[in-house]
Amino acid sequence: MADLRFGIVGWGYWGPKIARNLDSLSHASVGMVADLDTHRLASIVVNQPWIQTTTQVEDLLNSDLDGIVIATPVQTHYRLAKAALLAGKHVLVEKPLTASVEEAEELVALAKEMRRVLMVGHTFEYSPAVNELRKLVQSGDLGKIYCVEAERVNLGLFRRDINVIWDLAPHDVSILLYLFGKMPEQVKVQAHAHLQASIHDIAHLDLEFADGMTAHVHVSWLHPCKIRRVTVIGDARMVVYDDTNPAEMVKVYNKGADVHADPVVSYRFGAITIPHIDWIEPLRLECEDFVSSILNERQPRAHAGVGLAVVKVLAAAQKALEEQQRSETEMATVAL
Amino acid sequence: MADLRFGIVGWGYWGPKIARNLDSLSHASVGMVADLDTHRLASIVVNQPWIQTTTQVEDLLNSDLDGIVIATPVQTHYRLAKAALLAGKHVLVEKPLTASVEEAEELVALAKEMRRVLMVGHTFEYSPAVNELRKLVQSGDLGKIYCVEAERVNLGLFRRDINVIWDLAPHDVSILLYLFGKMPEQVKVQAHAHLQASIHDIAHLDLEFADGMTAHVHVSWLHPCKIRRVTVIGDARMVVYDDTNPAEMVKVYNKGADVHADPVVSYRFGAITIPHIDWIEPLRLECEDFVSSILNERQPRAHAGVGLAVVKVLAAAQKALEEQQRSETEMATVAL
Amino acid sequence: MADLRFGIVGWGYWGPKIARNLDSLSHASVGMVADLDTHRLASIVVNQPWIQTTTQVEDLLNSDLDGIVIATPVQTHYRLAKAALLAGKHVLVEKPLTASVEEAEELVALAKEMRRVLMVGHTFEYSPAVNELRKLVQSGDLGKIYCVEAERVNLGLFRRDINVIWDLAPHDVSILLYLFGKMPEQVKVQAHAHLQASIHDIAHLDLEFADGMTAHVHVSWLHPCKIRRVTVIGDARMVVYDDTNPAEMVKVYNKGADVHADPVVSYRFGAITIPHIDWIEPLRLECEDFVSSILNERQPRAHAGVGLAVVKVLAAAQKALEEQQRSETEMATVAL
Amino acid sequence: MADLRFGIVGWGYWGPKIARNLDSLSHASVGMVADLDTHRLASIVVNQPWIQTTTQVEDLLNSDLDGIVIATPVQTHYRLAKAALLAGKHVLVEKPLTASVEEAEELVALAKEMRRVLMVGHTFEYSPAVNELRKLVQSGDLGKIYCVEAERVNLGLFRRDINVIWDLAPHDVSILLYLFGKMPEQVKVQAHAHLQASIHDIAHLDLEFADGMTAHVHVSWLHPCKIRRVTVIGDARMVVYDDTNPAEMVKVYNKGADVHADPVVSYRFGAITIPHIDWIEPLRLECEDFVSSILNERQPRAHAGVGLAVVKVLAAAQKALEEQQRSETEMATVAL
Repeated sequence: MADLRFGIVGWGYWGPKIARNLDSLSHASVGMVADLDTHRLASIVVNQPWIQTTTQVEDLLNSDLDGIVIATPVQTHYRLAKAALLAGKHVLVEKPLTASVEEAEELVALAKEMRRVLMVGHTFEYSPAVNELRKLVQSGDLGKIYCVEAERVNLGLFRRDINVIWDLAPHDVSILLYLFGKMPEQVKVQAHAHLQASIHDIAHLDLEFADGMTAHVHVSWLHPCKIRRVTVIGDARMVVYDDTNPAEMVKVYNKGADVHADPVVSYRFGAITIPHIDWIEPLRLECEDFVSSILNERQPRAHAGVGLAVVKVLAAAQKALEEQQRSETEMATVAL
Repeated sequence: MADLRFGIVGWGYWGPKIARNLDSLSHASVGMVADLDTHRLASIVVNQPWIQTTTQVEDLLNSDLDGIVIATPVQTHYRLAKAALLAGKHVLVEKPLTASVEEAEELVALAKEMRRVLMVGHTFEYSPAVNELRKLVQSGDLGKIYCVEAERVNLGLFRRDINVIWDLAPHDVSILLYLFGKMPEQVKVQAHAHLQASIHDIAHLDLEFADGMTAHVHVSWLHPCKIRRVTVIGDARMVVYDDTNPAEMVKVYNKGADVHADPVVSYRFGAITIPHIDWIEPLRLECEDFVSSILNERQPRAHAGVGLAVVKVLAAAQKALEEQQRSETEMATVAL
Repeated sequence: MADLRFGIVGWGYWGPKIARNLDSLSHASVGMVADLDTHRLASIVVNQPWIQTTTQVEDLLNSDLDGIVIATPVQTHYRLAKAALLAGKHVLVEKPLTASVEEAEELVALAKEMRRVLMVGHTFEYSPAVNELRKLVQSGDLGKIYCVEAERVNLGLFRRDINVIWDLAPHDVSILLYLFGKMPEQVKVQAHAHLQASIHDIAHLDLEFADGMTAHVHVSWLHPCKIRRVTVIGDARMVVYDDTNPAEMVKVYNKGADVHADPVVSYRFGAITIPHIDWIEPLRLECEDFVSSILNERQPRAHAGVGLAVVKVLAAAQKALEEQQRSETEMATVAL
Repeated sequence: MADLRFGIVGWGYWGPKIARNLDSLSHASVGMVADLDTHRLASIVVNQPWIQTTTQVEDLLNSDLDGIVIATPVQTHYRLAKAALLAGKHVLVEKPLTASVEEAEELVALAKEMRRVLMVGHTFEYSPAVNELRKLVQSGDLGKIYCVEAERVNLGLFRRDINVIWDLAPHDVSILLYLFGKMPEQVKVQAHAHLQASIHDIAHLDLEFADGMTAHVHVSWLHPCKIRRVTVIGDARMVVYDDTNPAEMVKVYNKGADVHADPVVSYRFGAITIPHIDWIEPLRLECEDFVSSILNERQPRAHAGVGLAVVKVLAAAQKALEEQQRSETEMATVAL
């Protein structure tokens, strides 16, 4: 089977990681890297001289590369992904897919038209822990799901181009959509901009689903501790997925409360179970899925439709935030 | 100095605890206990036969007791506290002080008129850990405070008479008012009723203060883990107060981010410090303050004015919740 | 059923705790307390005036009390227990039972002769967590037990009358004997006296059993952290019992290694399970067992024979320690 | 400055890690790799075709490589290092340096004679956390050091060629020697072979130093949890270094006990401090030191003399273990 050759646009945080993973696969290699900043490209020139470097993205578009990875700021995703698809390339875009719903919809349609794989880097869909959690949810072991609490907080990294919702919430929203396979009906937001005048650094998203399930997503750049936690609360069992605790990533609590006809709530307390999870780096599985989707002409797990759904939720949150700011003292807000 | 004698109304969870603490003080003793349920009183009859028991609260009002502790459901606080004050008794009421702002205001005025101590059981104002945190805030060591994140979640205990805001948030609101000595200007709420039709069991309160400080309070009866945590985030230092970790209750993080004129954020990472805290049971300190306030004719720390302020915030949250429910799809909410 | 009345000798750390628990039982009450230090007795005079106090242990021996609790320094256990048994009293002695094997053997025989209950305060035999662990061991779920690692360390409390082996190891030795129901064949010791010239404050005991099982006990007064942990390592499963972690006291690891005929070791990694444990204060269960043994004329779980076995192990450790000090450079020790 | 070129002997666990680090340095590159197993070499052939591979160590000895890294089983260290030194190469040997004191002494002398760098891979000497701990020890902030407790346990990896003392204790012994810069006078051992007949898988080493300081090292392949912890106990402060907790690797406890002339022990309880540690991969620093030592013709931190000292302690432990097994019932051991 002939090897697939890939180009990377953007040599910042994600670019080198994706390149390393693609390179480690049997049927893939990295052939070209583009970045506007030649300083970033210097280490490639020294350590991996067989990889071509350029500051012109056109060099990748005009090449015979099979696929292009776009690991640049979100505002450029639409333009670059569109150009790559039009050039006949398969495309992996970092999350979020685009900066607006319209852009995402156009890319989804274009990829279909061009018969090319368009994938978005929702890495957590490839996390063995998230997949263990999904298995628990979908097996019915947790019972009816009441709600989910997601937290993703840390000190920084503060972004200057997007707020914390667009920076961190894509992870949690993609996890929610992947776990439950359904879209929320409503999104509410409480958010604050403490450090930079107009860029919110703390946000609480509240999602409601048609069946009564709710989800709360807390994202923040302003917190002393690194917390990466998703708690799924069912009427039969409750699960905590803590991405910062490798030895106990998924913890299943066999406990709950039952409301009875008469005014009595009873409580159940059973064992906690921590399943063993065979760990594989999610980014490697993501890269494998990208390559395999191209070779087998099928949709990857994190296909562009998933990316569009995530952007819809983020855009709704952004809109809620802006509307709220326009009418601070009304609705959902009470002055003391 | 003559001993003060106290009566307790309500022999449920808090009644016996307060009685034990009052009894352990030098100048105080418990003389009478009232509860509508004689089964609850049985253990007193057997183990502490020298304490008088009754199902009639009038027996306490008509006695020569110096003070009365009201440890009953919140709906009864106003009526019982008013009767006790009118009977010339000093009064300690469990939190929250009353079920409405009007009731609280009336009690504050009445206590002043009757020249009696009216105190509310905001126990956390007496916690050595909270006081350590307050010292840190007020010393300026934390710098300008950006925001606070408070969490108080656990499985149950589900209440049938009040929602989770009135049950758990009094603790966090009283801590916030005590730490910062200022009232929020606005309260927003995201809340859900999962287990019982109209009693919200999960709530997220978002408070905004005049100076830009914000606070978020997450209270829930639907969570697998017991979390009791308040994180105070200043521009100089950040502090986590974790009430469930006796060995490391207050953790001071010397870290932060600074925004500069040009588009650069820089980060500071220094040591974590965990001050040693000499532990004394907060309820004991609360009881001491009650007794000492009576003996010295002064206001206790958790005086009725504090109780009123807390009720104002809770009532604002309740109002925000109800208004939001009336207009779900508008403002601060975006349908997808 | 007539109530049993008890006397307590020694009103230090354990005396009041045992008294409170005995008093809370249906068929028991505390009638008299003796201590040489009248200051210690003062709080009884004030708060529990119905309990008789004395500095003369003879007052208890000559009374009509049914049983006597001996909560005094270990050197006095033998003399006081003997006197109490001879006076026809049932006796509960704090651990360790005596300061020597001979004393313990004499007490065991005397109790039998007098037909009185002689019990020793090995509280951990009544811990719900230890009993959960014992159930796991005895069910065979853990497979063949290779070894046990026990740790009991903290800063202080430094004793002036006994070393750390006699102070802390009684707990771990009694847990080991209770879990496995067999005596070790050999005891080795590594111990050091850092703070007080001749009183060892750190000790490592190494026990070997006839069937190849080994156990290691680390006790210390010189450690910054409070650790109370027993790890049981079987060829099928491994268990960590951590007495300082109430939410996860017993953790069962379904993991292990298997040696095969050819030079290959294979590893198994399965789930971790944390059974739910209904918590009851062990001291309360111990007091119940004492009372019930008297009423039903049967042996308590922690009967004097158990106390004797524990003293045998402690005395062997002490002997090993002393022999080692006499011949430091020989055997088991290599000078560099 | 001309680049140094290195060869690696042994492409197992450490070989590729050291190669990656050497390759990332400015003045170093890997030119050749030898392993007896050609399967292991396959990935180099595919992914790094510019590196020469061979099954003959002579190919490295006869090359123009500047230095050779020996990452093979310990029994081969002496022979391979000797050959490499005689061939005029600088040598980095994985720990422990050799399987015997005599071998280590000969290598130390030979390196001196050949004027070549001979370094041993005691990586922990390059750990930023260990260096923070060393700074605390050497500054005198901890006061007089009473004792050290080191633990290094986990499930596996079981070795077939050496016991757990030679496998894991080199880490802790090298840390001890590096922290305190002095050799113990005596070594005692308690060890057991549970899984493989004659290969001890659990060991407790007890070291005594001339000045009264003691150290205890617990190493094991038979434990459900991964523990990597060194506790240093001084009379002024105590420190826990936990290598498995990246956020709180070094924790300084300002607490202690003081013995006074009269029979009173008093306790001090102060703050806990967790210094911020700038993390750099220790193996990278080790490789930098190797390269820099060659370029600057100086001794590396983990020079062969350090390796010899560690082997002396391991050999003493092994001898103590063997002597003890010859006379199990005597000394330091008491049959019950």
